[in-house]
Amino acid sequence: MKKNLLSLLAICLVQTGAFAQGGIRNIAPVNFSKVTINDAFWKPRIDQVATVTIPVCIEQTEVKTPRIQNFEIMAGLKKGEFKGLFYDDSDVYKALEAIAYSIKNKPSPELEKKADQWIDIIAKAQQPDGYLNTYYTLQFPEKRWTDMSMHEDYNGGHLIEAAVAYYEATGKRKLLDVSIKFADHFASLFGPGKQHWVTGHQELELALVKLYKTTNNKKYLDLADWLLEERGHKLAKGYTWTDWKDTAYAQDVVPVKLQKEITGHAVRAMYMYTGAADVAALKGDEAYMGAMKNVWEDVVYRNMYITGGIGSSGRNEGFSKDYDLPNEHAYCETCASVGMVFWNQRMSSMTGDSKYVDVLERSLYNGALDGLSLSGDRFFYGNPLASRGQHQRSEWFGTACCPANISRLIASLGNYVYAQSGNGVWVNLYIGSQTNLNTPNGNLPLEMKTNYPWEGKVDLTVNPAKATNATLHLRIPGWVQGEPVPGDLYRFSDKTPSKFTLKLNGKAVPYKMERGYAVIDRKWKKGDRLELDFPMEVKKVVAKDSLTYNQNRIALQRGPLVYCVEGVDNGKEAWNMVVPVDTRFEATFNQQLLNGVVALKAEVPVISVSADGLSTVTQRKTITAIPYYSWANRGKSPMQVWLPTKINGILLNYNQ
Amino acid sequence: MKKNLLSLLAICLVQTGAFAQGGIRNIAPVNFSKVTINDAFWKPRIDQVATVTIPVCIEQTEVKTPRIQNFEIMAGLKKGEFKGLFYDDSDVYKALEAIAYSIKNKPSPELEKKADQWIDIIAKAQQPDGYLNTYYTLQFPEKRWTDMSMHEDYNGGHLIEAAVAYYEATGKRKLLDVSIKFADHFASLFGPGKQHWVTGHQELELALVKLYKTTNNKKYLDLADWLLEERGHKLAKGYTWTDWKDTAYAQDVVPVKLQKEITGHAVRAMYMYTGAADVAALKGDEAYMGAMKNVWEDVVYRNMYITGGIGSSGRNEGFSKDYDLPNEHAYCETCASVGMVFWNQRMSSMTGDSKYVDVLERSLYNGALDGLSLSGDRFFYGNPLASRGQHQRSEWFGTACCPANISRLIASLGNYVYAQSGNGVWVNLYIGSQTNLNTPNGNLPLEMKTNYPWEGKVDLTVNPAKATNATLHLRIPGWVQGEPVPGDLYRFSDKTPSKFTLKLNGKAVPYKMERGYAVIDRKWKKGDRLELDFPMEVKKVVAKDSLTYNQNRIALQRGPLVYCVEGVDNGKEAWNMVVPVDTRFEATFNQQLLNGVVALKAEVPVISVSADGLSTVTQRKTITAIPYYSWANRGKSPMQVWLPTKINGILLNYNQ
Repeated sequence: MKKNLLSLLAICLVQTGAFAQGGIRNIAPVNFSKVTINDAFWKPRIDQVATVTIPVCIEQTEVKTPRIQNFEIMAGLKKGEFKGLFYDDSDVYKALEAIAYSIKNKPSPELEKKADQWIDIIAKAQQPDGYLNTYYTLQFPEKRWTDMSMHEDYNGGHLIEAAVAYYEATGKRKLLDVSIKFADHFASLFGPGKQHWVTGHQELELALVKLYKTTNNKKYLDLADWLLEERGHKLAKGYTWTDWKDTAYAQDVVPVKLQKEITGHAVRAMYMYTGAADVAALKGDEAYMGAMKNVWEDVVYRNMYITGGIGSSGRNEGFSKDYDLPNEHAYCETCASVGMVFWNQRMSSMTGDSKYVDVLERSLYNGALDGLSLSGDRFFYGNPLASRGQHQRSEWFGTACCPANISRLIASLGNYVYAQSGNGVWVNLYIGSQTNLNTPNGNLPLEMKTNYPWEGKVDLTVNPAKATNATLHLRIPGWVQGEPVPGDLYRFSDKTPSKFTLKLNGKAVPYKMERGYAVIDRKWKKGDRLELDFPMEVKKVVAKDSLTYNQNRIALQRGPLVYCVEGVDNGKEAWNMVVPVDTRFEATFNQQLLNGVVALKAEVPVISVSADGLSTVTQRKTITAIPYYSWANRGKSPMQVWLPTKINGILLNYNQ
Repeated sequence: MKKNLLSLLAICLVQTGAFAQGGIRNIAPVNFSKVTINDAFWKPRIDQVATVTIPVCIEQTEVKTPRIQNFEIMAGLKKGEFKGLFYDDSDVYKALEAIAYSIKNKPSPELEKKADQWIDIIAKAQQPDGYLNTYYTLQFPEKRWTDMSMHEDYNGGHLIEAAVAYYEATGKRKLLDVSIKFADHFASLFGPGKQHWVTGHQELELALVKLYKTTNNKKYLDLADWLLEERGHKLAKGYTWTDWKDTAYAQDVVPVKLQKEITGHAVRAMYMYTGAADVAALKGDEAYMGAMKNVWEDVVYRNMYITGGIGSSGRNEGFSKDYDLPNEHAYCETCASVGMVFWNQRMSSMTGDSKYVDVLERSLYNGALDGLSLSGDRFFYGNPLASRGQHQRSEWFGTACCPANISRLIASLGNYVYAQSGNGVWVNLYIGSQTNLNTPNGNLPLEMKTNYPWEGKVDLTVNPAKATNATLHLRIPGWVQGEPVPGDLYRFSDKTPSKFTLKLNGKAVPYKMERGYAVIDRKWKKGDRLELDFPMEVKKVVAKDSLTYNQNRIALQRGPLVYCVEGVDNGKEAWNMVVPVDTRFEATFNQQLLNGVVALKAEVPVISVSADGLSTVTQRKTITAIPYYSWANRGKSPMQVWLPTKINGILLNYNQ
């Protein structure tokens, strides 16, 4: 009993970020439920996810595909046979998770009713012993838990995530109890002294940590840790991870704590490291931390696109070799960018280093956001950085992980704005919002106003009822400090840091820089107003020589946004222009364009074809660049992120 | 006994092509051992295979890789463990087969000694019950014959082909006896009333037919037939054809006799249809014939490259969907083109229709020949029709099917020149050579002189000791008759047939056209001299609209040769030129170029880059095209077969 109380206390302290274990900090993100977003950029998207994207997920899950039907058959509510793929259950759970966040943001009796209805079916579908999987139960009940690659545990992980989210959003326990029963069933079969289990698609680890945090039952944390420790010992021998028969695919070559290099399937990797970071933070396990720092550097220094997208190869939906980052054939799965947001948030929490948030912001505003159309009902599974016009967002996918994943990320965006550790407060993302933090010295209401990412001005009002000591950390983005990303994979053609200003109540205020944050430690008074101003220059990004695909090319970045040139704005072409490094771009907000974006314009040499089709002409023309996330919203059109600075090759009528 | 005699008689009759069964003709190819090739184009290649390519295969098989070593270990001559891949044995057998043909062409005590040495090892390695497979025996002897996808029978098929070839070349029975023992072992386990077996990689069928023809033991023919009949009944269920888990991959979806569409792995398909044609011819089975005609049309009308290459997709080393024939990403495995030669020869034998030889010739001179470097020691596994300079021939491959396959084809090229059925004589390929045919009316010596494919003149002297009746069929190639290929996949921009001439002893001679052959039925006298003259015009090939990759493009063909433009002849570029359909090309033989080729030259608009790299200029320049088979012999360089007729798209610095 004493032990339980102590561990409960430890959890509370950890969750408030009051102490760090073993050199690992615990800067707890402020939960989205405490953050009210009213941002001009994000609020419409969050609303649209609630009113458009989630209804699309519901319709696809329930009407257009038999995902819910499989549960209904299993629950005895319908007759029929299993249809679909062995991991389809997970899409139901992820949609539920998105609904949970969304109704917490803004109540919706309709969505809540739908969720309750689904949850009733799911609960009825669960087997008496806690097992829950429509694919096996309806087809091969005797074969359950015989093939580690078949996502039974992956589906279970998403069940847990949905259950925790729905419990936190509504206080309703039904799905949570289902998920606990599933987790206990899993734990009855697998764990120390029981059978081995190496998850074929990591996910259950991070879910078990959430279940631990919700139930305070440490066995789930230990089980998550055990699952991570199972990897890299050839315990999965005899099983087929995938058609690729490759243990690197599922990060199962060496134990997680000894991993140094990123390999294999990108989403598997992101979910695993997110789970490992959670375990590391809660257990103070520096071995995990050390491994993850190495792997993170391998990702960011050698294997990440300028969009924050990862996993360049469609062959394995993941990583190939270092510096192999083709643009048109970039895979860059939306889910992998969502996973980058998850993992980098954990790395940030454990270190207080803004470089992780720099990467998080890059993946969020570019690689991940590109996965969702401006209309909210079309999706990219892969997010290429160049197109000859062949790409188009889809209504849905056979493997439909991405739509619900981007939905749940946007619906829970509040999780990534603020963080807290004791009386330390971190402002990580600049998103118009309000929150009210409980610090050891009293409540600290914060209100942020900004037109970010279009403008660099941020107003932060601190409104304590009484003067309150707190150490405020304001992230100064890497792109302000002259570095697009940590490492040397990409650099700005002009490395000079931008001159940002930071004022308190109208006057320059002293601050110190700590791990990328401007830190102000003071007694805050009601109405204290901080003004940050980041110059929004158009920066030219140059890639390291090893990135052969980007040689003699630049990418454009303004604020956190990476830009691209799309044919629809440029006489249907995007591959016929030369943009010397010193080209001056003009940035103008245009409310009529793509729901309102800052577009970039410049006059550059453009090659076009003579009327007879037998020669080319070069003319200076004005080209327009738009934010990368907003391309492919106006029909099929060619696109490029990396633009040539001079011509060193011409291909006429290229068609591979 | 009576039955055996009758079947023996039937075989003899069939082999001499004296009669046709069930509407299927049996026009027997004249065996290469009866054809002496002294052709300016082919003779140096046949010699080079003997002196360069086969020694490369030997060195790779024996010294640089452990292929022979695996046999030595199994024979108890060395200690060690199996190394390599489960189908590596087949490369040893294919090399032996190439050696057999080669020493029959031109004795080589050295090569024969090496072959005898290998054969001794192989014989020692054979298990007492006839089983022969180093992969299983050295590693999992208890698992043999448990997985149909593991090429035990494929390896066995190549053992038989090598054994038959070596027996025919040398009269030595040792390897033949090994192969009979293997075949009998297989037959003891599988066949009607025994276990099922669906070969995972077809090859054993055609090999068993060869074994039947050599031994006159009909059980091998029946076993080949049975193996074909095993397919398409879901008998392979539970086995994994490949990582693709796809029965279409191994042509196992419907029974062979019901197949209408080409699917899956191209080499598997070619070997299967070759075996099916052999069985059809020998058994007069029109069901096979009907199926193959449909499949052949599906290949040639919808799925074949202008080079005669097939299997556009690297994903399955085979066919994708109709009309999906990308150029740069063409897979077009060398072995698949070799298989096209095999299969089309059989189709020609069964029909007497020259369209099959048209396709054979196309695959031989283009898709297959491209697999071998001019130096004889470098190989293409895939043969793309466009390159941005990334392709290069290799010294060898992990999966090394292609080098020995192209070797054995060239070493046995004599098989494809003449064919015979009673007193009917077919001249299929125009290759300088001599032969002496036994006809029912007496011996008929033939001597062909030509500088084909560079020139269209063919001199054919008929030299019977006494005047002899015979019906001579001279193939008038489709490209002479105004059609690059049967069907409408490709057509010449000018469909007018070329005006060829045919003279006998200096005077025009009457002939009738039959299935693409000029037929002359007469009593031939000693010294009768036929002169054929095909105009060698440069023809422009246009693709059907469905071939989207080739729209607004032409390919160049002269004689049977498809041409390409390679950067090394054209200022390092091959993608910067426009070639209007009416461009006039000049054809000139150049002995200094690529061991002697006819190159094509024309003046066309060429786009190049200004000195500052910021604009393009269009100038008329002379471009040079070379035979497709000869590209990639002078370092890495861009290349295109299909050239744009007008510009409708520009990509600067394209790099996917």
